[in-house]
Amino acid sequence: MSSQWILKEEIDEILDCYDQANLKIATIGSHSALQISKGARDENFKSLAICSEAVSWFYEQFDFIDEVISVRNYKDILKKRFQEELIQDNCILIPHGSFVEYVGAEAILTKLKVPCFGNRITLEWESDREKEMSWFEEARIKVPKVFKKPEEIDRLAIVKFFGAKGGKGYFLVRNKDEFYEMKKFIKKANSYLIQEYVIGTRFYPHYFYSKILDRLELLGMDIRYESNVDALGRIPPRISRSLELRESYSITGNIPVVARESLLPKILEIGYNLLNASRKLFSFGIIGPFCIEMICTEHLELVCFEISSRIVAGTNFYMDGSPYSSLYFDEPMSCGRRICREINLALSSGRLKEVIF
Amino acid sequence: MSSQWILKEEIDEILDCYDQANLKIATIGSHSALQISKGARDENFKSLAICSEAVSWFYEQFDFIDEVISVRNYKDILKKRFQEELIQDNCILIPHGSFVEYVGAEAILTKLKVPCFGNRITLEWESDREKEMSWFEEARIKVPKVFKKPEEIDRLAIVKFFGAKGGKGYFLVRNKDEFYEMKKFIKKANSYLIQEYVIGTRFYPHYFYSKILDRLELLGMDIRYESNVDALGRIPPRISRSLELRESYSITGNIPVVARESLLPKILEIGYNLLNASRKLFSFGIIGPFCIEMICTEHLELVCFEISSRIVAGTNFYMDGSPYSSLYFDEPMSCGRRICREINLALSSGRLKEVIF
Amino acid sequence: MSSQWILKEEIDEILDCYDQANLKIATIGSHSALQISKGARDENFKSLAICSEAVSWFYEQFDFIDEVISVRNYKDILKKRFQEELIQDNCILIPHGSFVEYVGAEAILTKLKVPCFGNRITLEWESDREKEMSWFEEARIKVPKVFKKPEEIDRLAIVKFFGAKGGKGYFLVRNKDEFYEMKKFIKKANSYLIQEYVIGTRFYPHYFYSKILDRLELLGMDIRYESNVDALGRIPPRISRSLELRESYSITGNIPVVARESLLPKILEIGYNLLNASRKLFSFGIIGPFCIEMICTEHLELVCFEISSRIVAGTNFYMDGSPYSSLYFDEPMSCGRRICREINLALSSGRLKEVIF
Repeated sequence: MSSQWILKEEIDEILDCYDQANLKIATIGSHSALQISKGARDENFKSLAICSEAVSWFYEQFDFIDEVISVRNYKDILKKRFQEELIQDNCILIPHGSFVEYVGAEAILTKLKVPCFGNRITLEWESDREKEMSWFEEARIKVPKVFKKPEEIDRLAIVKFFGAKGGKGYFLVRNKDEFYEMKKFIKKANSYLIQEYVIGTRFYPHYFYSKILDRLELLGMDIRYESNVDALGRIPPRISRSLELRESYSITGNIPVVARESLLPKILEIGYNLLNASRKLFSFGIIGPFCIEMICTEHLELVCFEISSRIVAGTNFYMDGSPYSSLYFDEPMSCGRRICREINLALSSGRLKEVIF
Repeated sequence: MSSQWILKEEIDEILDCYDQANLKIATIGSHSALQISKGARDENFKSLAICSEAVSWFYEQFDFIDEVISVRNYKDILKKRFQEELIQDNCILIPHGSFVEYVGAEAILTKLKVPCFGNRITLEWESDREKEMSWFEEARIKVPKVFKKPEEIDRLAIVKFFGAKGGKGYFLVRNKDEFYEMKKFIKKANSYLIQEYVIGTRFYPHYFYSKILDRLELLGMDIRYESNVDALGRIPPRISRSLELRESYSITGNIPVVARESLLPKILEIGYNLLNASRKLFSFGIIGPFCIEMICTEHLELVCFEISSRIVAGTNFYMDGSPYSSLYFDEPMSCGRRICREINLALSSGRLKEVIF
Repeated sequence: MSSQWILKEEIDEILDCYDQANLKIATIGSHSALQISKGARDENFKSLAICSEAVSWFYEQFDFIDEVISVRNYKDILKKRFQEELIQDNCILIPHGSFVEYVGAEAILTKLKVPCFGNRITLEWESDREKEMSWFEEARIKVPKVFKKPEEIDRLAIVKFFGAKGGKGYFLVRNKDEFYEMKKFIKKANSYLIQEYVIGTRFYPHYFYSKILDRLELLGMDIRYESNVDALGRIPPRISRSLELRESYSITGNIPVVARESLLPKILEIGYNLLNASRKLFSFGIIGPFCIEMICTEHLELVCFEISSRIVAGTNFYMDGSPYSSLYFDEPMSCGRRICREINLALSSGRLKEVIF
């Protein structure tokens, strides 16, 4: 039962009942909700933030958020009555990283009947590591070597435990002995991925595929700021020489960056390849914002290791536009606003259903 | 005698004689003077930069600075005649980090009769490490463990010598032996603080408490760029393995950053806690800009280690507004301009004395 | 023959035939071409991007690029017929880092008759390391100590092989033994520079000398983001303690930064010194954008190690203006736009020849 997906037709029918002159942009108060809500206002939509009781006060401060609803549990969104109210209110949900984490990709696919911006099927593909790998393969995008078992490890590798969230429970090893040594520290250590650790600079490009304009835009780029790995380099050699300290990769923020211009065509090409592969692998393909986490080696080769097929938090620096967004738009264009702009473009060309699922 | 503080009433009386239609925003030419002066112009005030002879030419270049005065010594500001001229000119001084360092917190509290933006009493509290600690305690803000003597050190710790300015004379140790070993290199090594060294990402949020609007704003955020610690990580392992090199923490610049959105309510809450504690501990509490230097651990816990209760230099990246300032204002709003805007808000509501001391 | 430089008079004659009301801004599609082309549009010029066949599609996406020409080889620009067409079209070329690399400084000086913005003689001085050193010396700018032979190395030093491009083939050594050990890994290892490795924070200030306004502007500042050295600090001590890994310095991108305000007069002074020295050393001196790569030590001393006497890629973050550009201009002013603005200022005061060679 739970595996029965909501059909596109069901959402279309709900959308048919919407008052298109009074759409409301709704999301969960976290992750990138500020820019989404501000983008809604800038694009003349009403905005709604669904918040845990602990943070409602925070979102209520901002003028551009028209309404804040408090919930005890984010899964309350799935309740029939809650969904009906959102639908009654002509809400379009914008799924972001925390939204997917709190509500769950499967619940979104099987239980959430409120229309969402983009293609919800992508959430299935980004959250399943094997599907993600086959997506990269279909797109012929270079990825780090995968070691099927600890015994195969023949170089610096990163071990990622599936239960681990946001970079916790990741660690580096160079051989099977180090693997088993580190594994002791992980509680739920049944399922993991062992990947070659590619050394290089990190880029998180923010793509936006506009279905309406049929073009792939590069809206920005960031570097994740992770605790504690981004603090390790500041410990002087004198100390680190003998310091016992386990690395962790908790995402705590984002630092803005630009790539050298000669890398931009490659970065955009990788985006197009992923987009085209998505259309082969599942219905409708990617619609709207996505990110491909990548490493740039010393040979200027780009190696990709993760897909986020929705708005990423690294866009938060560009609340007021980015160096790249200014290449496409003469006004400040955050990724959140770009989503709302796409809804506007779809509305004015009578193609709303093409960007909503 | 020198400990006799200037009374708020004295400043109020001086302010009564001011021509409120012709206020001039004045500060020392350093630290964040550019954004303060530009902010003054943007908010329709005249601006004055008091500069050492060596840098007057630099500030004279900029159109938005109406007047540059050269001084041999920044303490000249304290001279009776100089103060009278500033008062004659309807000047409001904006104290910043270098201002406080050059003129001295005590001199500002006891000798400087020129009206200042904000609450000058905070300068006493930010510059005295024991007062700062009791402020954190009153606010129930998590701080690193303090070791009362070298013999207590049981983990990685940072030693801060009180004479040390801007991060020089700080170093890391793991036990009393390392402490005494490193102490040899410090000249005036009588007085120091030994604090647990918390490993994590660093955030320097720029708060602004608006007395007039009664709200705490988050105007921006930065990471300090310190020499030489921020250069250590680039030295290859092959070399650093045997490199003898002492760490230092001289602040040389600032890198922009955003925190993950789920941390923002916590960051703002910490700010409110500090604000509320300030009102309990001393008259008037914090007014205007302040910063709480903090570390984010791998468990997403925020540990705070310093207060700056005036504009910080990390705001300099946001000369033209920040991702966060755009949440409150539809125009470019630097922290310097925000100060001037507050003066304007106070003026137009007849509440100038509430933001000046 | 190839050493016969094109005379300024020849370019002036060509410029005399130009239709000044229809100038076209042309550059090679790479490096900083996006901001240059966008700047051209913002300043009401037509824009042309000369691209390799592989990247034409990328530049054709952008509205602000009026024309894209594909070439098999960038040196095609030097062909007589190609040059004639550019001249026919009233093109002003903007040389950038990749432009100089692809076409070659010598070819630009001896074969390229198309008018260029700035003073092409500077390209000779930035690309010849000995000339660069004498330029620093004439300007009395502090540089790292140079070791004439490996036997002289008495501290941490960086070895730069002349054939090496963009930071590849650079490595660190501490003595002659390490030098000869590392030298084995370099193929064309005949010619090199051994420089003291100064440890500190890095700043790449973006200067613009306006001939028309006779002022030196500071338009921005960045930190280069290099692979793999900027990834080394994230490897945990546990691993790096025994990791064999060669450092490399491939430039992959740029991170924005501001320097503490008290450093700005020094940074501008260094720029003026280099400018004044340029006028003594060669005809016309620097015109337009340049960058001096520098390290800030823990003692806040600035040590300079390279000159780029044309637009640098670090300006790419500031496509829409920078914290510093907003001190001079009330509109978004990228370095690319600043170049075009200078051409406009020159045009309107009848001084175009002063900024073109």
